[in-house]
Amino acid sequence: MKRREFMKGAAVAGAGAAAAVSTLPKPAIAQGKKELKMVTTWPKNFPGLGTGAERLARNITAMSGGSLSVKVFAAGELVPPFESFDAVSSGTADMYHAADYYWQGKSKAFNFYAAVPFGLTATEQTAWIHHGGGQQLWDELSKGFGIKPFMAGNTGVQMGGWFNKEVNSLEDYKGLKIRMPGLGGEVLRRIGAAAVSLPGGEIFPALQSGAIDATEWVGPWNDLAFGFYKVTKFYYYPGFHEPGTTLSSGVNLKTWEGLSADHKAIITAAMAAENDLSLSEFNARNNGALNTLTGKHKVTVKKFPDPVLNEIGKASGEVVGGVRSEGGITAKVLDSFLDFRKQSIAWSKLSDQAYWNARLLPFKYAG
Amino acid sequence: MKRREFMKGAAVAGAGAAAAVSTLPKPAIAQGKKELKMVTTWPKNFPGLGTGAERLARNITAMSGGSLSVKVFAAGELVPPFESFDAVSSGTADMYHAADYYWQGKSKAFNFYAAVPFGLTATEQTAWIHHGGGQQLWDELSKGFGIKPFMAGNTGVQMGGWFNKEVNSLEDYKGLKIRMPGLGGEVLRRIGAAAVSLPGGEIFPALQSGAIDATEWVGPWNDLAFGFYKVTKFYYYPGFHEPGTTLSSGVNLKTWEGLSADHKAIITAAMAAENDLSLSEFNARNNGALNTLTGKHKVTVKKFPDPVLNEIGKASGEVVGGVRSEGGITAKVLDSFLDFRKQSIAWSKLSDQAYWNARLLPFKYAG
Repeated sequence: MKRREFMKGAAVAGAGAAAAVSTLPKPAIAQGKKELKMVTTWPKNFPGLGTGAERLARNITAMSGGSLSVKVFAAGELVPPFESFDAVSSGTADMYHAADYYWQGKSKAFNFYAAVPFGLTATEQTAWIHHGGGQQLWDELSKGFGIKPFMAGNTGVQMGGWFNKEVNSLEDYKGLKIRMPGLGGEVLRRIGAAAVSLPGGEIFPALQSGAIDATEWVGPWNDLAFGFYKVTKFYYYPGFHEPGTTLSSGVNLKTWEGLSADHKAIITAAMAAENDLSLSEFNARNNGALNTLTGKHKVTVKKFPDPVLNEIGKASGEVVGGVRSEGGITAKVLDSFLDFRKQSIAWSKLSDQAYWNARLLPFKYAG
Repeated sequence: MKRREFMKGAAVAGAGAAAAVSTLPKPAIAQGKKELKMVTTWPKNFPGLGTGAERLARNITAMSGGSLSVKVFAAGELVPPFESFDAVSSGTADMYHAADYYWQGKSKAFNFYAAVPFGLTATEQTAWIHHGGGQQLWDELSKGFGIKPFMAGNTGVQMGGWFNKEVNSLEDYKGLKIRMPGLGGEVLRRIGAAAVSLPGGEIFPALQSGAIDATEWVGPWNDLAFGFYKVTKFYYYPGFHEPGTTLSSGVNLKTWEGLSADHKAIITAAMAAENDLSLSEFNARNNGALNTLTGKHKVTVKKFPDPVLNEIGKASGEVVGGVRSEGGITAKVLDSFLDFRKQSIAWSKLSDQAYWNARLLPFKYAG
């Protein structure tokens, strides 16, 4: 059935692919032409997220000379956003582009492949998954659902969120209705907040109607696009709950195994390239957007007080460590992650952190 | 002549490509089969650098199903390491893998596409080049030499170097014979050191013979491989001179322009993928190597004193700003870089730096 879908798909391939088709003899089409359906959890062409999925699809199509094309479906176009995983698992779609913590109801281990509170930054997360054993465990975890997973983007360190009231102590979280997915949500519930998970497209109406009091989403670039500044006052940092959120793309395992060696190599490289293009795009766009938020829209940027961060850090450690009770693969992922986190902190003290601190010394630079 | 070289090259393609060749009809070989020669500035299979170049070559070959194969030449195998740029510029080789500050004798603007003292970190550098206008200026700069340039790896923040004596004040740099390439070398000359640039393979003998007193190279992973711990005592951080060194691959412009659209897409994605795979590999390997250096080899790790860093920061600003005197493209690159650096510092204060500082609060995590 899958194969027949591909054959049918070849006829509706995008413009670039179609052009290539016309110059190829019929047998080449019959032998190799494939179209993959990609479902996403993002609104259509949403900056960085939806556009990242589109770029990934475009690159795969271009690299293969159109012999493998990818068609992207925005949230709700083929299936509701949070059903993307099941759609790929069952073969309704061939791949998803999402953040894996949306699947934590299936296994808490998925959180570690998106973001966990006080966990790894983007570069550390990428190091763990590519070269620290993370990918092998992710393969094992996802295989149980018939999916081959890849990193396919990273938002970098997120902002802490939008609040209507200042956060001065842990008391300010009591009863707070806040949108926060994954383990971050659990941390906030532990300190008394009423945390909920909502797909991106549903956040603004919920905030506007008062159904929620506060929300986190991503960072200045994305948050500006949703217009949260119109209905809230304070913009907090740092995003302790998502220090480098991995965006991911899972491919139906049978689809994956049925691909040729060159198509597998193309997809693998396209995913790694997207990881590079995405993180760099978020970093490049966030500062300009921050200027717009603070300058044009008069948003007040505030840092969470250290005593609050310290208490949230403690609760984060309890929540993250608590996933061990799921046992099996979740405990293995946790152990691997914690070991890598410890090493990363040791190295960052001599590298990035030491450098950033040195760069803030009072010397005048290139004046 | 180029095309004839490719035709000849197809006959000596690697194992994977050769296998593919045997299954293809003759006309397909005659139509599209190409082999590119990649020269590098690295010793054969040197960790992260030579192996990164090999991985890049392997990925391009695999993605193209062998229709485009890349053969890697280590430093000195085809041309001496520092002649790699000229070899690609003249068409003796099709591409190089190197760090662009090696070409600063041609234009000081090349430094900004590798590393400059107190400049951008790996993620900031990638953001500037991919999404902040850096690539367009690099294209303009390299076009003058008949080269199309790409990012193709990053070492992350480097270590400050290996010293036989402690660095307690700026006085300790007076007359110091130290290996440091690029603008970092100029900064040290400005504060009184005798800085030289040497290809990687020549550093250890120079250090052992006393021809130099100190050296920087990369970080724990690479420095362990060269065995500097055998002949020096102190290992300093942070690497203010190379806060995120971009590795680069330049392709002969005529070769590039002669490639098909899918081969161009394959090379472009392979470069971005290598950027992702390389930085993450350096981050993953550095900490383990640091443990080996401090544990097994009893290396003493020390931080440069803040007053020394502040003075070096001041000299760095003068040296970096000083490239403006070259005018033309160099001045344009400098302006773009300085603007992006300013924005990056503003954003890092709310993102990575704020997060890393929060992560060092005293809370217990996942015990």
